[in-house]
Amino acid sequence: MKKSLTSRKEDYSKWYNELVVKADLAENSAVRGCMTIKPYGYAIWEKMQAELDKRFKETGHENAYFPLFVPKSLFELEEKNAEGFAKECAVVTHYRLQNDPDRPGKLRVDPEAKLDEELVVRPTSEAVIWNTFKGWIESYRDLPLKINQWANVVRWEMRTRLFLRTTEFLWQEGHTAHATKKEAVEEAELINALYADFAENFLAIPVIEGLKSESEKFAGAVETYCIEAMMQDGKALQAGTSHFLGENFAKAFDVKFTSDQGKQEYVWATSWGVSTRLMGALVMTHSDDHGLVLPPNLAPIQVVIVPIFKNDEQLELISEKANAIAEALRSKGIRVKYDNRTTHKPGWKFAEYELKGIPLRIAIGPKDLEKGSVELARRDLLSKTFEQQEGLENLIENLLKDIQQELFNKAKAFRDDHITKADSFEEFKDILESKGGFISAHWDGTAETEEKIKELTKATIRCIPFSGDKEAGKCMFTGRDSAQRVLFAKAY
Amino acid sequence: MKKSLTSRKEDYSKWYNELVVKADLAENSAVRGCMTIKPYGYAIWEKMQAELDKRFKETGHENAYFPLFVPKSLFELEEKNAEGFAKECAVVTHYRLQNDPDRPGKLRVDPEAKLDEELVVRPTSEAVIWNTFKGWIESYRDLPLKINQWANVVRWEMRTRLFLRTTEFLWQEGHTAHATKKEAVEEAELINALYADFAENFLAIPVIEGLKSESEKFAGAVETYCIEAMMQDGKALQAGTSHFLGENFAKAFDVKFTSDQGKQEYVWATSWGVSTRLMGALVMTHSDDHGLVLPPNLAPIQVVIVPIFKNDEQLELISEKANAIAEALRSKGIRVKYDNRTTHKPGWKFAEYELKGIPLRIAIGPKDLEKGSVELARRDLLSKTFEQQEGLENLIENLLKDIQQELFNKAKAFRDDHITKADSFEEFKDILESKGGFISAHWDGTAETEEKIKELTKATIRCIPFSGDKEAGKCMFTGRDSAQRVLFAKAY
Repeated sequence: MKKSLTSRKEDYSKWYNELVVKADLAENSAVRGCMTIKPYGYAIWEKMQAELDKRFKETGHENAYFPLFVPKSLFELEEKNAEGFAKECAVVTHYRLQNDPDRPGKLRVDPEAKLDEELVVRPTSEAVIWNTFKGWIESYRDLPLKINQWANVVRWEMRTRLFLRTTEFLWQEGHTAHATKKEAVEEAELINALYADFAENFLAIPVIEGLKSESEKFAGAVETYCIEAMMQDGKALQAGTSHFLGENFAKAFDVKFTSDQGKQEYVWATSWGVSTRLMGALVMTHSDDHGLVLPPNLAPIQVVIVPIFKNDEQLELISEKANAIAEALRSKGIRVKYDNRTTHKPGWKFAEYELKGIPLRIAIGPKDLEKGSVELARRDLLSKTFEQQEGLENLIENLLKDIQQELFNKAKAFRDDHITKADSFEEFKDILESKGGFISAHWDGTAETEEKIKELTKATIRCIPFSGDKEAGKCMFTGRDSAQRVLFAKAY
Repeated sequence: MKKSLTSRKEDYSKWYNELVVKADLAENSAVRGCMTIKPYGYAIWEKMQAELDKRFKETGHENAYFPLFVPKSLFELEEKNAEGFAKECAVVTHYRLQNDPDRPGKLRVDPEAKLDEELVVRPTSEAVIWNTFKGWIESYRDLPLKINQWANVVRWEMRTRLFLRTTEFLWQEGHTAHATKKEAVEEAELINALYADFAENFLAIPVIEGLKSESEKFAGAVETYCIEAMMQDGKALQAGTSHFLGENFAKAFDVKFTSDQGKQEYVWATSWGVSTRLMGALVMTHSDDHGLVLPPNLAPIQVVIVPIFKNDEQLELISEKANAIAEALRSKGIRVKYDNRTTHKPGWKFAEYELKGIPLRIAIGPKDLEKGSVELARRDLLSKTFEQQEGLENLIENLLKDIQQELFNKAKAFRDDHITKADSFEEFKDILESKGGFISAHWDGTAETEEKIKELTKATIRCIPFSGDKEAGKCMFTGRDSAQRVLFAKAY
């Protein structure tokens, strides 16, 4: 049995690490900090990709593909961006291996195959893309240019965790170019709203939309919009960001266009991305001590059917019924698996599908055949009911929608319960210690105060939220004026 | 106007290079040998991906994702594979940049951030995947394991050409593990047949299936199956390969399983892939001196509608009809664009869509409104007819199928016309010089003879074909015994 998962209460971090591996989502690889995404995990990622890709295309974006490598001389052009990523860059310096004269049958880097210019493995693609956009943009007629890329990126992280922080990860990165500031700001906002809607209505993860503080924003951005989620241990997780880049990259890469007035002007830019990190958010939002809990939208298998039988004759009769049920479900577009393996017992299968987070499990035994019934188990509630076979597909179709909605409601109730106001630093520290979650507090707007609070508590400003009360007040740390409350939290 | 493409007769190679750029498929990037795949080119690649992905899943394969980097010590384990790729490996040696003290505002590699072990950027993933499979396979119950990965790979090529040979390219690589040799051989054959069917019935590219000779097979394989296509200039192009790897990787990475007899045995393997190279094959199989010709299956836009008008009033009336036609086509699943831009003249649009290979163009002017007709232009034949608006969607639905089939027929007729028998080396050289194409000739089966022929003529053995006559004969070069004719050609 694969069971015996550490409980969340016992050790949340250990629970997560074990679950990701035991549920076959991902595992560590031979390369420090790089993960292998296993087929079951990748199937869930594919569902996220397909939905996002559809939404990007519906909003007028096109996919393209840009090189993995960034020549150092391009990488360093936008100085803030370069400075922000320089410390975590994997660098290619050579282009050939040769036989190692000292170790027969082994290889070494060929010292004569040194590159004239080092290549940075992209940590993000602004540099290489803006260098390309320079050739694509001449006039206002070429704008807006709205491009997305699905790609792998590399950031040399010192402490890594599966999905949450890995040296290599998969993501999509959008890069757009606009004739006006207004249009670029609107694009950054549109995408942040798209991410929020995707998180809430597809992943069932409630998020708070807002702006990052100066210290937390993307290196090279004028403003960073973000969506922030709350995990079950009271720590926040940044689930997506959308950046208004101003004219920073256009100036660094000299990208101008002829306006409809005939003037030469710099282009306005945005970039935005979500990554395989969302897989971590998905696990930590919904799952429990028994294993994964998957929202039906994300489940590679939505319904599993397990036969309960003592002999081949029984199995044959049950299979006939099970296959009919499976067909009726498939005709409604529901993803079903009928597990008729004789190599594993029902109890083993139940535990396995519980661990894997299959939303609904149908069990059929000889008595069910007599009664025209099935046993239906809900993974999220760990509940069981007996249902009639007749019309089961309609019941399940509705139930899957309910589960999707209820998982969101449950996560939202938890999240809402974990937004607490603090009006003094003492109160702030107490809440952080006792309950965690988002703490809504006044802040004087300076990076200095933000830094001190971080040093003392490890909590950072997750965002300056768009919604919520906007009344002014006094900074809980310095007592200076504050325009509105911001959300602090310890974060992944 | 973007026109004035070099003609194929004038300079085939130049025609190809110009066309790929002018039709917005791809362009060179700032990184030597790496391309940028532009949105139009990427949209075509996505169609290939979607179809292949569907076929892989239908045949029981699952997607997963493995790391970009391969530690050198793993890379060198399977010696033949390592030897085959060592000369073209990009190698990461450092993980950080720092400010360059000699050049303010610029960066350099941080000499203190040198990796203990160099990382090879994957040229192919057998090493990293078999190292992972070791942890996944214990018993015969874990087999077969049938995994596919969509990824980027890097091979440091000296002479590069867009799509055909680039330092970084996109591909899929399948990696499977089996309990028996028979099953692994069957898998390699199944995939080669899948590739052939995909090439012929989806890309409309006729291919010849066969085996590679010892010298041409994949480094580390026991047998390499392949599909070979013929381009319009008489040069062959390897469009896909499927390898039976025997126990080579299982032995190198010590991957054993407990058989149903309770014995420890090595696992049998296959790997297989197709890449963005197929984009080059697509262009060079069907396109002409006017630009791209796309098989309807691959066309991001299958039908474009262009209004012919002198004033806004006319445009409005035409648009009403054009939108109705577009809707009727879309309801049949046909991809349509209505180009009502007033910034470009019809003639400009005609040339643009001709260049981009849109299979069908509808033009509607004021007279068509009166007559209830449209002008319908076929890109592949450069022909025009007048058709009734009534029932146009049915006509077009059938026409798209016809075009798909006729493109294949045309390419197959050309290919069949470019398979020529040669019974002496003189004859062989004459054909190669005058006509090119595949030359079907007897060969004594030795690498030595193969190498000499290559030195003298630049022609290589493309494959030992499965079909065609199997009569024995005498090697056209040495006069020694030959079991069957093989296909030679100059190749991309």
